[in-house]
Amino acid sequence: MKRIYNFSAGPAILPLKVLEEAQSEMLDYQGTGMSVMEMSHRSKTYQQIIDDAEADLRKLVGIPSNYKVLFLQGGATLQFSMIPMNLMKNQSADYIISGHWAKKAAEEAEKYGKVNIIASSQDKMFSYIPDLKNLHISKDADYVHICDNNTIYGTKYYELPNTDGKPLVSDMSSSFLSEPIDIKKYGVIYAGAQKNVGPAGTVIVIIREDLIRKDLPSYTPIMMRYDIQAENQSMYNTPPTYGIYLCGKVFKWLLNLGGLEAIHKINVEKAKLIYDYLDGSSMFFGTVEKKSRSIMNVCFKSTSEQLDEKFIKEAKANGFDNLKGHRSVGGMRASIYNAMPVEGVKALVDFMKIFEHQNGGKA
Amino acid sequence: MKRIYNFSAGPAILPLKVLEEAQSEMLDYQGTGMSVMEMSHRSKTYQQIIDDAEADLRKLVGIPSNYKVLFLQGGATLQFSMIPMNLMKNQSADYIISGHWAKKAAEEAEKYGKVNIIASSQDKMFSYIPDLKNLHISKDADYVHICDNNTIYGTKYYELPNTDGKPLVSDMSSSFLSEPIDIKKYGVIYAGAQKNVGPAGTVIVIIREDLIRKDLPSYTPIMMRYDIQAENQSMYNTPPTYGIYLCGKVFKWLLNLGGLEAIHKINVEKAKLIYDYLDGSSMFFGTVEKKSRSIMNVCFKSTSEQLDEKFIKEAKANGFDNLKGHRSVGGMRASIYNAMPVEGVKALVDFMKIFEHQNGGKA
Repeated sequence: MKRIYNFSAGPAILPLKVLEEAQSEMLDYQGTGMSVMEMSHRSKTYQQIIDDAEADLRKLVGIPSNYKVLFLQGGATLQFSMIPMNLMKNQSADYIISGHWAKKAAEEAEKYGKVNIIASSQDKMFSYIPDLKNLHISKDADYVHICDNNTIYGTKYYELPNTDGKPLVSDMSSSFLSEPIDIKKYGVIYAGAQKNVGPAGTVIVIIREDLIRKDLPSYTPIMMRYDIQAENQSMYNTPPTYGIYLCGKVFKWLLNLGGLEAIHKINVEKAKLIYDYLDGSSMFFGTVEKKSRSIMNVCFKSTSEQLDEKFIKEAKANGFDNLKGHRSVGGMRASIYNAMPVEGVKALVDFMKIFEHQNGGKA
Repeated sequence: MKRIYNFSAGPAILPLKVLEEAQSEMLDYQGTGMSVMEMSHRSKTYQQIIDDAEADLRKLVGIPSNYKVLFLQGGATLQFSMIPMNLMKNQSADYIISGHWAKKAAEEAEKYGKVNIIASSQDKMFSYIPDLKNLHISKDADYVHICDNNTIYGTKYYELPNTDGKPLVSDMSSSFLSEPIDIKKYGVIYAGAQKNVGPAGTVIVIIREDLIRKDLPSYTPIMMRYDIQAENQSMYNTPPTYGIYLCGKVFKWLLNLGGLEAIHKINVEKAKLIYDYLDGSSMFFGTVEKKSRSIMNVCFKSTSEQLDEKFIKEAKANGFDNLKGHRSVGGMRASIYNAMPVEGVKALVDFMKIFEHQNGGKA
């Protein structure tokens, strides 16, 4: 059995312990004589699995009782539609455009009402988080939408916009559970599991109860109603049972590790290892403004595209996979989610130093 | 490691060989050094997995080249909305109501146009497939919708309605791949994977290309457009990668077994074992009309509710799990999908005989 250091932006690395547990339970979950994926979602055993997952997530994040936790399908992209369908009472919302996915979310919302782009960093290829001072929040806005961590560009919000009391909606797909979250500051948080939490096919939604409406447009598909999903505790139809089971294992892994403060400390340490090296290198450099740097997705380039290509190829041969940057940015991207061990990042930096030295850099 | 005979209606039993393979590949898929669930859906390795899954499904079923195969999320319930959103050009469709899910599909379609119920078996608690002679197909109907196999009641279509040339749309969630399918007779087939094909969270859609429209209502969520999903080969966003991988393994398992004719023969044999016993029993009896009997979900009762309860309890203690019927029908239901071996059904029948004998029956 070979395991490599997997820097994929998502679907991404999962904790080895979680995979090993899933492996050992694959044919027989705790003496039931069946795999979790063979279980009725209405069985007591499965109910316990999803109840534990929710309870552990609530404990891990500190989710107040006036917020619902939903495990849904369709990824963040289906949330791009569900958010405006369910929240646009006045058919108006403010969006801050900090990257590709934030833009996609805004474009989708335009189907359901007026979308006001109140800030954007598209002028410099999304290499920074827009200035949040002097934002003009629309009077009739039903919510303000941000994308917390921009996977493609490697940027992250370090302060939140003042929304003038409007609910803040945050797409946290690539930063969820990487640091403590003060849930009270948000109206809705959503996150596709496949980056930092579990396998693709589950999206987690945390929504303040008073934002769940019943008077929705008649065309709203029943599966896309937060009220229906909340009333049925994510089981209006068969949920992605196996994915939720794995998310639950990741929550337990994080609790055992000491919770979100503990993992945040580790994540900061991992990111610092790479960024410090990049800042001292004569060959590699980070591609975004320092104050906007993500601790989950580290984007960088070398002095030439040829060298980028050579680096990616040699890195792969040495057991560091999925370092190619997104096609819209080029260069490299090291996604260092919770499950990436510190040793993986140290090994990568060591490899970069050797590569730099061997290819004429000063290191 | 214990394995029991699992008669769950869904999520349901999977082939042991498929689970064993998934188990062995959990930490390292074919030397890549990562689990399939840790792989980028844009990687060459994963592209091969989804391409193989589609190719194997096409081979297994014999899907003509003018049909698209999609692997989507949201289960059959999201299809209840997607079908009318995408197909209702004239805002009209005909539905045949043969059970709970067919009814749910029709109710959802009413949000998007006029729904004509052209036949129903609700008068006798859905214990038969409605008479298909003298159907009045609506002139302006965009399609005719049926639910092929009714999981809750245990009934199945053995002939198809004459739709006067309108596209036939069939929800095959609980019968897909249990028998040969003549795809040309259908406009759209859809099936939630969690009954006969794979884990929950993947729904398979087979759609004739000319039914894929671009001029859709402006409110259609981008994820719910067949044109977008088809153009992007089910990868407009991250698909349920692990679920599709498992579906692919099930397709290969069926091909190795000899294909749909071979599995159909086995399924008929399994169903006959139970139905023959039921028809001769003085204690147990089938609950649906003989000519509508499903070969996937066998619903039956004993002479009293107390005896039903006793039977379910003792069966479970003897390694036959999930035999309780749906709450709306009561009694028992043995779901004997493809993955249930003949020995499992034989063992169940033997157990029923003993139970009947021990509890005062004639057997």
